[in-house]
Amino acid sequence: MTMNEFLGDPRNLTMLMDYYQLTMSNGYLSHGYKDTIVYFDMFFRKIPDKGGFAIACGLEAVVKYIENLKFHEEDIEFLRDKKIFSEDFLDYLRNFKFTCDVWAVPEGTVIFPNEPIITVRGPILEAQLIETMVLLTINHQSLIATKTNRIVRAAQGRNIMEFGSRRAQGYDGAIYGARAAYIAGAIGSSNVYTDKEMGIPAIGTMAHSWVQLFGDEYEAFKAYAETYPDNCTLLVDTYNVLRSGIPNAIKVSKEVLEPLGKRLKGIRLDSGDMAYLSKECRRILDEEGLWDCKIVASNSLDEFIIKDLISQGAYIDTFGVGERLITSKSEPVFGGVYKLVAVEENGEIAPRIKLSENVEKVTNPHYKGLWRLYEGKTGKAIADILTLHDENIDETKPYVLFDPVFTWKKKVVENFTAKKLQVKIFEKGQLVYNLPNIEEIKDYCREEVNSLWDELKRFENPHNYYVDLSEKLWKIKNDLIEQYRDKI
Amino acid sequence: MTMNEFLGDPRNLTMLMDYYQLTMSNGYLSHGYKDTIVYFDMFFRKIPDKGGFAIACGLEAVVKYIENLKFHEEDIEFLRDKKIFSEDFLDYLRNFKFTCDVWAVPEGTVIFPNEPIITVRGPILEAQLIETMVLLTINHQSLIATKTNRIVRAAQGRNIMEFGSRRAQGYDGAIYGARAAYIAGAIGSSNVYTDKEMGIPAIGTMAHSWVQLFGDEYEAFKAYAETYPDNCTLLVDTYNVLRSGIPNAIKVSKEVLEPLGKRLKGIRLDSGDMAYLSKECRRILDEEGLWDCKIVASNSLDEFIIKDLISQGAYIDTFGVGERLITSKSEPVFGGVYKLVAVEENGEIAPRIKLSENVEKVTNPHYKGLWRLYEGKTGKAIADILTLHDENIDETKPYVLFDPVFTWKKKVVENFTAKKLQVKIFEKGQLVYNLPNIEEIKDYCREEVNSLWDELKRFENPHNYYVDLSEKLWKIKNDLIEQYRDKI
Repeated sequence: MTMNEFLGDPRNLTMLMDYYQLTMSNGYLSHGYKDTIVYFDMFFRKIPDKGGFAIACGLEAVVKYIENLKFHEEDIEFLRDKKIFSEDFLDYLRNFKFTCDVWAVPEGTVIFPNEPIITVRGPILEAQLIETMVLLTINHQSLIATKTNRIVRAAQGRNIMEFGSRRAQGYDGAIYGARAAYIAGAIGSSNVYTDKEMGIPAIGTMAHSWVQLFGDEYEAFKAYAETYPDNCTLLVDTYNVLRSGIPNAIKVSKEVLEPLGKRLKGIRLDSGDMAYLSKECRRILDEEGLWDCKIVASNSLDEFIIKDLISQGAYIDTFGVGERLITSKSEPVFGGVYKLVAVEENGEIAPRIKLSENVEKVTNPHYKGLWRLYEGKTGKAIADILTLHDENIDETKPYVLFDPVFTWKKKVVENFTAKKLQVKIFEKGQLVYNLPNIEEIKDYCREEVNSLWDELKRFENPHNYYVDLSEKLWKIKNDLIEQYRDKI
Repeated sequence: MTMNEFLGDPRNLTMLMDYYQLTMSNGYLSHGYKDTIVYFDMFFRKIPDKGGFAIACGLEAVVKYIENLKFHEEDIEFLRDKKIFSEDFLDYLRNFKFTCDVWAVPEGTVIFPNEPIITVRGPILEAQLIETMVLLTINHQSLIATKTNRIVRAAQGRNIMEFGSRRAQGYDGAIYGARAAYIAGAIGSSNVYTDKEMGIPAIGTMAHSWVQLFGDEYEAFKAYAETYPDNCTLLVDTYNVLRSGIPNAIKVSKEVLEPLGKRLKGIRLDSGDMAYLSKECRRILDEEGLWDCKIVASNSLDEFIIKDLISQGAYIDTFGVGERLITSKSEPVFGGVYKLVAVEENGEIAPRIKLSENVEKVTNPHYKGLWRLYEGKTGKAIADILTLHDENIDETKPYVLFDPVFTWKKKVVENFTAKKLQVKIFEKGQLVYNLPNIEEIKDYCREEVNSLWDELKRFENPHNYYVDLSEKLWKIKNDLIEQYRDKI
C-alpha cells in the first residue's frame, strides 16, 4: 500500500476542532466577512529540549485531512441543536468547499522558531476552520521527529528502533509517532500497523512472557531458536543476565543454531546496568566465538542516556527506544501557533499583528516569503530570512543580515545561494503538490540535517541560528507596533 | 449518540500491536501451546507527579477494541510476505475469535501501584495478542484522568475546561484525552468532536484572530456581542488588557448588551500576569457594576500554577487548561505493564514470576483478587489487599495488614467493610459488562476520590497508601523467588 492510498483513513475528522472556530465563523458570516481573504501563518516559538533546530513533520496528514473535509448531515443537526448558529451558517457548512491556497515547507525540513511552516490564504471561514487540525497534526509529528533526530544523533551511527506504542498518548500517537520517528532516522518500529499501512519496517522478537510461559529459560530460548533460526534475538534478563540469560543463550547457539549452520543474531538487555552488562556480555560472547551476535538495549532510553552509555564504552549495537521517544518525555509539547498575519482590503494586503508585552512574542505580520541562505563553498545553511512575499534575494550581491530584536547586530554575507523553503500544496483548494513517499521524506530529512553546521547539532548550548527579517518587512512590523502603541 | 454507538469507530486497530506479539504467538502455536490457559495482569508501578493515587480510565475503548478484533485477508497477506509465519498460524489469525475472560476495575476507580487494573485469563495466543492495545489504551487515558484530577483539585471548586486539542499528541490524544479529562472532573472541552460523539460539553468563544480581523478591538467586541448576546465572553489581551481590552469590553457591555437587557458573561485572559491582571479586572468590572462577569484564564496552566494563583488571591472563576493537561506535560508517561502471572498446567494454576534486582519490581504472581477495605465509621478507604483469587476477606474479624517489603510493619484493622474492585467484563469472549455512560463514570469517579483521606490528595508528600499481600499470596511469592534463586 502506498502513502497515497493511506489517505483513506475512514475517520472523518472534520469535527475535530475547537468550538470557537465555529462560533467565530458563524459570526464572520453574519457580519459580511464570508468572502474576506486572509492569511494565516503556522509557526512555533521555542525549540524543544533547548535544541538547535526542529524538524517539520505532518504535512501529509494535513493534506489528507483537507482532502476529506466534509460536514455531514448529522454534524449539521448536532450544531443546529446548539441553537446559536444561523441557518445561513449551517448551509455554508453543508456546502463547505475548501478553496484556499496553502504553502508549506516539505516534511523533513529543518525549521526554526518564528518561521511560517504553513501559510494559508483564503476566505476567513475556511482558513479559520482548519486551525485546530493543522496545529494538532504539525505539532505532534514535528515534536516526535525533532526528538527522534536527537536520539539518532546521540547514537552516533548505531541503530535506533522505535519501541514506544504501548506508552504512546493514544493510537494516533503510536501510529503517526512511529512515522515521524522513521522519517527522522529510526530504522523501524515495533508497530505492525505502521508497517502494513505505511511501509515502516516492523521489528521485534520476544517478551518476558515467552520465557515465563516455558518456565525454564533454556527451553524457552531453544524453542525460539527452532522457530526463528535465521533471526534469533534472545531476551536475556528475565531471571539474571550473566548467570542465566547469557549462558543459556550461548548453549542454544551451540546446541540448536550451529548444528543448523546458523548464528545467534542478537541478545537483548531490558533492565539492569546497561554499561556494565553490555561490556560483560560482549566479552563473554566474544570468548565463545559469538563475535557477530549483536547487543540490543531497551530500558527507558533517550538521547542523554544513550550519549552517556556510549561515553562509558558500552557495547550496544542497537537501541530500542520507547516511552521517552514516543511521548518526547523531556518536553512533550511542540508549541506551534496559527496566527492571522494579513487581510485583503480593497485589493491590497493589509498586514495584521498580535502584540505582546514580550517583544519577541509579537507576531511577524504580512504575507511573507521564507528563504534559506547556504554558504556557496560548503553548501551549509547560514541564515534564514523572512521577506515580503514578493521580495527577491539576489544571490549575486552581498546580503546584510540584521537581528530583528537587536538591530545593531549586523552581518554581511557573500557567495551564497538562496532557496525559498515553502512550496505550494493547494491552489484554490486543489492539491497541486506531489506527496513524496516515506523513503523520499526520510532521505530528504537526512540531507536537511546534513546541511547544518555541527555547532547547531550539539545538545549543550547549540549555536543560535539566524532567522532575520528583510529590511522592508522589519519596517512594516515596526510601523504596526507604533501604530497600535499610539492607539492604546 | 450514546457511548455504545460510539463503539463503531470505523478503524480496525487489530494490527496495532508490537511485532513480537506475532512472532511469539506463531512460536506458541508451533510449540503446542495453542490451548494453554494463562493469566496476565495489567498494572502500573509509579504514580505520576509523585501523587498519592491514580485514576483508571480507558476500559470502554479496550472493550471496543476487543469487540472489533478481526484479521482481514489483507492483514494475512501482509504477514505471509514476512516469510516467517506458518500457514497454521495465518489460519489461526484468519479465524481468530476472542474467548478469554477479562476482569477490570471500572473506569474512574482510584488505583495504586502493583494492583491488577485488568486481568486476562485465556489461551496464551489471544491473551498475548491484545497486550499492546490494552497497555496503550489504559496507559494513555489513566494518565490524563490522573493529571486532570490533580488540576481539578488544585482549583478548589473553580471550573476546569479542557482546551488542549491543538497540542495533543495525535487525534486520539485529543479525543480520548478530552474524555478522560471530563471523567476526572473537567466541566467540558473545546473539542467539538467529543461533544458530538461522546456528549462532552463543547466550550469556546473567540480567538485573537477575531479581534485582528476587525482591526479595531471595540468593533470586534461589538460584533461578537451582537452575534452572541446571551453568551458573550470577550478575549481582552490582543493589544493591552487594562488599557484597551477591559475598557472596550465594558463599553460593549453598556452600549450593546445592556440595551438588549443582557449581561456580559465573561472576559478571558490569555497572557500576562494572571494574578495581577485578574485582580485589576475584577476591581474595574465591579466598579462598573459588572459583578457577575466571570473571569476566565488560559495561559500555560497546570495544578501548580493554579494553586499558586489562588494563593495569591487571583480572581479567576474558570481555568482553561491546554497543553499541560492534554499531554500530562510534567510526567507524560503512565508506565503500565502487562505481565504473565500464571499458567494452567494439568488443571492446576501454576504461578509465574518475573524477577528483578530491585525487590519492589518483582511481579506479584498468580491469579489474584483485589480488595479495598473501608473504615466502617467514615467509609474512607484504608488499605488495598491482593489475595489469591479464591480467598475471602471476612469483615467480621480483625484483619492483619503487613508490608510486603518490610514485613515486620504490621497493623490490625477492625470495623471495616471490604469490596472486590475488579468486575467481570468478558466471559469466554462475550461482553458481560454493561458499559456505564460517561456521566455515570464521571459521578463514580467523584465518589471514588471522595472516599480518600485528604492526606492522600495533597500534592506534597502525600500519605503512602497500603497495598498489601495476603499472607498466602506473600508466601507463594517468596517461595517462587527462593526457587529461582536456587536455580541460577
